[in-house]
Amino acid sequence: MLSKEELLAKANQPSADAMRLHPYYRGKVQTMLKCPVRTFEDFSIWYTPGVAAPCKAIQKEPALAYEYTNKANTVAIVTDGTRVLGLGNIGAQAGMPVMEGKALLFKYLGGVDAVPLCLDTQDADDIIRTVRLIQPTYGGINLEDISQPKCFRVLDTLRADPAMQIPVFHDDQQGTATVLLAGLLNALKVTNRDIHNTRFALVGLGAANVATLRLLQASGVSLEQVIATDSRGILHKDRSDIAAQAEDYPDKWRACLGSNPDDVRGGIAEALAGADVCIAFAQPGPGTIKPEWVARMAANSIVFPCSNPVPEIWPWEAKEAGARIVGTGRSDFPNQLNNSLGFPAIFRGALDVRARTITDEMCLAAAEALAALGEEKGLDDDHIVPDMEEETLYPREAVAVGLKAIEQGLARVELTGEELYTLADERIRNARAMINAMMDEGAIAPVPPEE
Amino acid sequence: MLSKEELLAKANQPSADAMRLHPYYRGKVQTMLKCPVRTFEDFSIWYTPGVAAPCKAIQKEPALAYEYTNKANTVAIVTDGTRVLGLGNIGAQAGMPVMEGKALLFKYLGGVDAVPLCLDTQDADDIIRTVRLIQPTYGGINLEDISQPKCFRVLDTLRADPAMQIPVFHDDQQGTATVLLAGLLNALKVTNRDIHNTRFALVGLGAANVATLRLLQASGVSLEQVIATDSRGILHKDRSDIAAQAEDYPDKWRACLGSNPDDVRGGIAEALAGADVCIAFAQPGPGTIKPEWVARMAANSIVFPCSNPVPEIWPWEAKEAGARIVGTGRSDFPNQLNNSLGFPAIFRGALDVRARTITDEMCLAAAEALAALGEEKGLDDDHIVPDMEEETLYPREAVAVGLKAIEQGLARVELTGEELYTLADERIRNARAMINAMMDEGAIAPVPPEE
Repeated sequence: MLSKEELLAKANQPSADAMRLHPYYRGKVQTMLKCPVRTFEDFSIWYTPGVAAPCKAIQKEPALAYEYTNKANTVAIVTDGTRVLGLGNIGAQAGMPVMEGKALLFKYLGGVDAVPLCLDTQDADDIIRTVRLIQPTYGGINLEDISQPKCFRVLDTLRADPAMQIPVFHDDQQGTATVLLAGLLNALKVTNRDIHNTRFALVGLGAANVATLRLLQASGVSLEQVIATDSRGILHKDRSDIAAQAEDYPDKWRACLGSNPDDVRGGIAEALAGADVCIAFAQPGPGTIKPEWVARMAANSIVFPCSNPVPEIWPWEAKEAGARIVGTGRSDFPNQLNNSLGFPAIFRGALDVRARTITDEMCLAAAEALAALGEEKGLDDDHIVPDMEEETLYPREAVAVGLKAIEQGLARVELTGEELYTLADERIRNARAMINAMMDEGAIAPVPPEE
Repeated sequence: MLSKEELLAKANQPSADAMRLHPYYRGKVQTMLKCPVRTFEDFSIWYTPGVAAPCKAIQKEPALAYEYTNKANTVAIVTDGTRVLGLGNIGAQAGMPVMEGKALLFKYLGGVDAVPLCLDTQDADDIIRTVRLIQPTYGGINLEDISQPKCFRVLDTLRADPAMQIPVFHDDQQGTATVLLAGLLNALKVTNRDIHNTRFALVGLGAANVATLRLLQASGVSLEQVIATDSRGILHKDRSDIAAQAEDYPDKWRACLGSNPDDVRGGIAEALAGADVCIAFAQPGPGTIKPEWVARMAANSIVFPCSNPVPEIWPWEAKEAGARIVGTGRSDFPNQLNNSLGFPAIFRGALDVRARTITDEMCLAAAEALAALGEEKGLDDDHIVPDMEEETLYPREAVAVGLKAIEQGLARVELTGEELYTLADERIRNARAMINAMMDEGAIAPVPPEE
């Protein structure tokens, strides 16, 4: 065991490294060529006069943009900076390091070419309008770190817009829920539970848990199996405060009407009493969830305190209080439910079939693929999701997403599972090979020694 | 001499290569890392939790975005696809290959990380609003292939907007005019002319010649030395058709009032009579400008028929008619006045001093640096601008732009000319070294043999 001082030093190391290395590299992503320049003569192929030919071809047949340009593999990471990590509304400019980091993960983990797009606005309509306008450039849009309730309207409006011909995905909703669900599915297996006979307590009903609730329902969970809380306590049909904001929070109001059939009143304590599973995306802890409340859950309970950077309850406290399986967002505890297990593969699969959207069912397919791999690798209380370094993880998940899109009639190209696997695997391998080559060649400088 | 068939085959080769190679490479630019990933542990530096530290630092001091992210070196190439090359209004989606090609040139020639941003709109206000919104992401904005008169309003509005803290540049205006001016300055030297005693005929007064006229004036040319034409003939103060559109075409209306002091009436023929210099950005030829009109120009005349893909008059026809120096936009004739000689270095210089805008004076400084290098290399009738492959070309031009920005009080960082040269030179060398390394390593596949 590390001492408290050692733990603190370890916890602070990433910040110290980040402050040292961000100015050293001056950013984390750059534009690189995809095609060769043998001599300056090649400019006549890639630019005038040769480039006119592919332009005219695309004008005639717009789908050719997927063949003749990098649109098919490019995703914009769109944010307004209103809810960046656990930092809150720090604004678009300050959000840039996160968006570049996300682009780095997209490339390294999914072979996806993502670019940051930080918008100097806090207005939902501005975001919606901008995403509509930029559509020709990208194969997909990843919304990021947008505060609620705005994020619901932005995502729901764009997903419902027939003019949007590319997928719009909000990672803090769909991506987070996908990985959570994968962990949940395996935790249910470890504890021998049937999802249809499981009682869920959702602590906090913000972006992540609204999406989790949707995915739970897509998995066959009935709203009646759920009790949800927000900062004012348990949701029930007399919550006039939520009724008054039903337009901004439609899912939340539906939860008021359909969940909590026994009309339990109270707070987190009452919501947890007798619950099998606690999924918390609420106020950072510790202390948001008390050990004595966990103690009142069902035997062999599953507790996912996912708030960052500090979970709603420390994992050891939850365990001591009787929880069987605990998962958090942190890498320094077992069962890290990490978004990075989801979005790179979800986009990889969606892009490879040129999907028009990313449905809850596609996310569910990703969660199931993730869970299946975890099961193959061997499940136990401390291993409910596979490791990010698992070689087949991203391709398998991408295949599941792509095949579901095809099944749902949302794909523009139809490939077999095998073809999709090969494609995803190659693209991810190529991305990493390129990055490694750049590092080997010194084109990406080695990390300088600490002074 | 090649036969007509051979010339035609040669002229068609770039299109054929483009149609073969665009689908092979599936795009010309991609996202690449700028920083290393040694192990997955590094994600805690580049993403959560470490990334929170640079975010908070930028929130406190927004200028740190230039240090901690790639904003300082990133440019958006923004188009609505309404005037792509000589293809006209082919739309945003079909414009993608050109914007990717431009991003390729930005990287290869200027070491600038540019990304395409094709907007699904034809409305000036949409473009203006979008550019304002995306500002946090970029160090500069390159407007591209936007039709007139919209392009004037977009550029003028954004340049005048005090909220725009990054340079907005329209290459089809400022970039084109910069390179033209460099050629002109040297052609004047070759023909022993003083710019203040030179008579100019501007054929066509669209985006390029409006900007050329501005740069001429910034170089000390008086409007009274100029006669300009548009599709309806010579501009004069009774042109009520232009007066009626003065708001959309402010520069053109100013030209009506101030140019052509002898009140010449007529068309291109009359405009050219006695002129020293003809600068044409008008209807593609041949035949737009007739040889007999060139014959009526002053002795040792300078003729720049710059329409693409076919100049307003073939160079040999202009020469036979008495022109001393002829320059076009084409690479297959001497004196190519090619935009690629300008924009990569103009942005390189503007970015390296974190300029707030790109003024006409900065463009003029670039033109003068370009002209000076041409002079050093040796001027004659067929060599008025230096070659794109000239090693010192882009750094020298960038230095001139950066120093002018500093002089004008528009720079956020002040460097010496020597420092600026080293910076630009290194960045351009690094970009090419990276591209070459990618090619050597096979990360960019070699061009496949023709079948």
